[in-house]
Amino acid sequence: MALQKPSIPKGTRDFGPDEMSKRNYIFNTIKSIFQKHGYAQIETPAMENLDTLLGKYGEEGDKLLFKILNSGDFMTEIGSSGLKVESYNALALKICEKGLRYDLTVPFARFVVQHQHDIAFPFKRYQIQPVWRADRPQKSRYREFYQCDADIIGSNSLLNEADLIHIIDEVFQTLGITVKIKLNNRKILAGIADYIGQPDKIMDITVAIDKLEKIGIEAVNQELQLKGVSVQGIYKLEPLFAISGNNQGKLEKLKKLLQTSHSGFQGIEEAHQLLNLLEVLHLKSEIEIDISLVRGLNYYTGTIIEVKALDAEIGSICGGGRYDDLTGIFGLKDISGVGVSFGADRIYDVMDQLQLFPVETATSSKFLFVNFGEKEELYSLALLTKLHAAGIAAELYPDAAKLKKQLAYADAKHIHYVVLAGENEINEGLLTVKNMASGEQKKVKPEELMNLINSNQ
Amino acid sequence: MALQKPSIPKGTRDFGPDEMSKRNYIFNTIKSIFQKHGYAQIETPAMENLDTLLGKYGEEGDKLLFKILNSGDFMTEIGSSGLKVESYNALALKICEKGLRYDLTVPFARFVVQHQHDIAFPFKRYQIQPVWRADRPQKSRYREFYQCDADIIGSNSLLNEADLIHIIDEVFQTLGITVKIKLNNRKILAGIADYIGQPDKIMDITVAIDKLEKIGIEAVNQELQLKGVSVQGIYKLEPLFAISGNNQGKLEKLKKLLQTSHSGFQGIEEAHQLLNLLEVLHLKSEIEIDISLVRGLNYYTGTIIEVKALDAEIGSICGGGRYDDLTGIFGLKDISGVGVSFGADRIYDVMDQLQLFPVETATSSKFLFVNFGEKEELYSLALLTKLHAAGIAAELYPDAAKLKKQLAYADAKHIHYVVLAGENEINEGLLTVKNMASGEQKKVKPEELMNLINSNQ
Repeated sequence: MALQKPSIPKGTRDFGPDEMSKRNYIFNTIKSIFQKHGYAQIETPAMENLDTLLGKYGEEGDKLLFKILNSGDFMTEIGSSGLKVESYNALALKICEKGLRYDLTVPFARFVVQHQHDIAFPFKRYQIQPVWRADRPQKSRYREFYQCDADIIGSNSLLNEADLIHIIDEVFQTLGITVKIKLNNRKILAGIADYIGQPDKIMDITVAIDKLEKIGIEAVNQELQLKGVSVQGIYKLEPLFAISGNNQGKLEKLKKLLQTSHSGFQGIEEAHQLLNLLEVLHLKSEIEIDISLVRGLNYYTGTIIEVKALDAEIGSICGGGRYDDLTGIFGLKDISGVGVSFGADRIYDVMDQLQLFPVETATSSKFLFVNFGEKEELYSLALLTKLHAAGIAAELYPDAAKLKKQLAYADAKHIHYVVLAGENEINEGLLTVKNMASGEQKKVKPEELMNLINSNQ
Repeated sequence: MALQKPSIPKGTRDFGPDEMSKRNYIFNTIKSIFQKHGYAQIETPAMENLDTLLGKYGEEGDKLLFKILNSGDFMTEIGSSGLKVESYNALALKICEKGLRYDLTVPFARFVVQHQHDIAFPFKRYQIQPVWRADRPQKSRYREFYQCDADIIGSNSLLNEADLIHIIDEVFQTLGITVKIKLNNRKILAGIADYIGQPDKIMDITVAIDKLEKIGIEAVNQELQLKGVSVQGIYKLEPLFAISGNNQGKLEKLKKLLQTSHSGFQGIEEAHQLLNLLEVLHLKSEIEIDISLVRGLNYYTGTIIEVKALDAEIGSICGGGRYDDLTGIFGLKDISGVGVSFGADRIYDVMDQLQLFPVETATSSKFLFVNFGEKEELYSLALLTKLHAAGIAAELYPDAAKLKKQLAYADAKHIHYVVLAGENEINEGLLTVKNMASGEQKKVKPEELMNLINSNQ
């Protein structure tokens, strides 16, 4: 076979030991906080039937699904005639019936409906798995990346929103990232469309508002005009985004403007109640009601949440919201849910940039026994076995390589102590132990090895 | 959109909270033992370039690879003329350049070569990720399943074999599964082919021997004859498999027969030395030299290892071996490695069947606060927040549902204590706490809640 230069598909990544330790630090932090709040883990298959995925992420999303070629003779499905005339999109659907998971939310909805009779509702689940998107790879955008989601489905209480926002606050506090948690409510956005007298334009208005931060008010107004929003409407809209004050103050002002809209009134009520609940939780992070917050996903119907890191130039690192009918398409109506998703890759980037990872995320061995050859090796092996039996991470270098090489290995793997048991040491009944951090070297009795880490862990 | 009955692709599975807890118990056990022995975690992408995967698993393996349709207009690669004449296999390679990982070993070899300059050799790595095979689904055979692999690459010391066998012993001891660890060496198998004078038939001989347990000696001999092994050869072969005695005794007898074969001699020497090393480790599991052990994979060149559960009728639950040139195909020659792979799904099945899972694998909440309505809810929420701050897993039921429903929820989620803070309790400054296991109910002060679990965890 010809020699192959090894590579991986573009937009995908290998993770080596150091990266894995850091990534696990993030995942374990999030996981333990999810669990503390009563969320239970599930996993779903990487492959879903394409009809589960298609149509759930908009036209653009459909294009970004990775499709899996049917196994066996996939061509039998196609008349030989059919091949030339059809578009590749139509052909793809004939030769592929499975696709890779695009997010964790749609598989979760599918899971809930499929297993509805085995689930205790309200169902609090978390899920940490990779997702795949055939996006154009670029900085901080990958074709394979992990999502960490927590959702609670089967309850429309705002306590659930409060619980998830509490989780967000705890996660970022624990990781050491200072964040601002922005909140809005889709019903407030609907109320705004009512207020300017163009409820039918709600989608266009939210799409335009979503760009406010990026393109500025002038360009937003231009876009609104293009989409058919009246000049009068635009005129009424602009002051809304200038509303200032603290959160309750903002809501009071909005309430006066939107009170004639049923949706608007409801949205403001919900935001108000949610703020009251959050009050009880004494969160460390700043909370901001931001009525220009939209979040792209169509399935949100109530509260929307987005988290920004304050000390790093990066997009949102966590987001979510309430959806009132996610499971409807799979046949389970009138089940309301709310969820948040943590972007592990962006969180990693922020922590790396701000040097927030603890020095010791790596789970490295405490001891490395130097290998001096066949005879000494058996002596060290017996000691090693005792450490293992005591639950202590330790290794014996497998070859009688030069000492320098063995020390370099210990250094590269962040091993705490190197233990030398050569002929002299064996005869003396002692071990030479080198502390790799300080360089300090001393002789100890074999039974004293464990004390070293007890006193120094 | 039409209503969809939710389902998942055949051969794949959803894992709910209870299964996940049990699966995590297995993964965490294996993971912590890998780490204790100095193995560091890596992860590789689910998708590999097809040319990394093709040709590594035999012709049958190539067919079982899940291929991913190129995104964008995959048809431009193909002249419209090409479609009819070609086999679907050839066409598949034109419209797919990526495939899903089939095992963890080939991606590991690719990883080692690609990152060779960043790796401290000998490289001890573990990897726990799903793999995908387009196999015909059947009982205990899935199209998506997890592998848990540990390998050490860049050292040909038998200490590495001993280390991995030690890990196997510890894993199954910890999980409570009684196993027999079978050992053989590919060089002994080569020696056997030398011994009967047909070294060229080594592959046919091992393939036939592999079936010994399943089809018996008669059928094996028939197959050998069909493959062109001489009657004389078969005659010489048969007594080898009748060799009995303890492990060292077996090796002594074999040594006499195979001593003229260089490979055979070396294989027996290695097995002998390995047994000596294992002696030092005082393993709990039975070790058996079994010269009929073959293991299908072509890349093994030395020690081979297979683990059988003694109390369950199931195939091998762990296996591995030494490979002398796995990275050669990717351009890194003369790097020897040895590895083992734990079959998480079969281990799960054995543990489930023998009821070996600890009662409490689930990470459930300690407390559920009953929701009595808006006023009481704020009172409970404040208490909940204190428990969370102390790191205790606890929940507040989000809706003021009937008490029966809230208790059923606590029961389904294996929550330890239900806390009732109704109007009376709030006025008294006390809480009613119900122990869900015993049914016992008592009143405690709010600040005493934590003592309940400290005394009872």
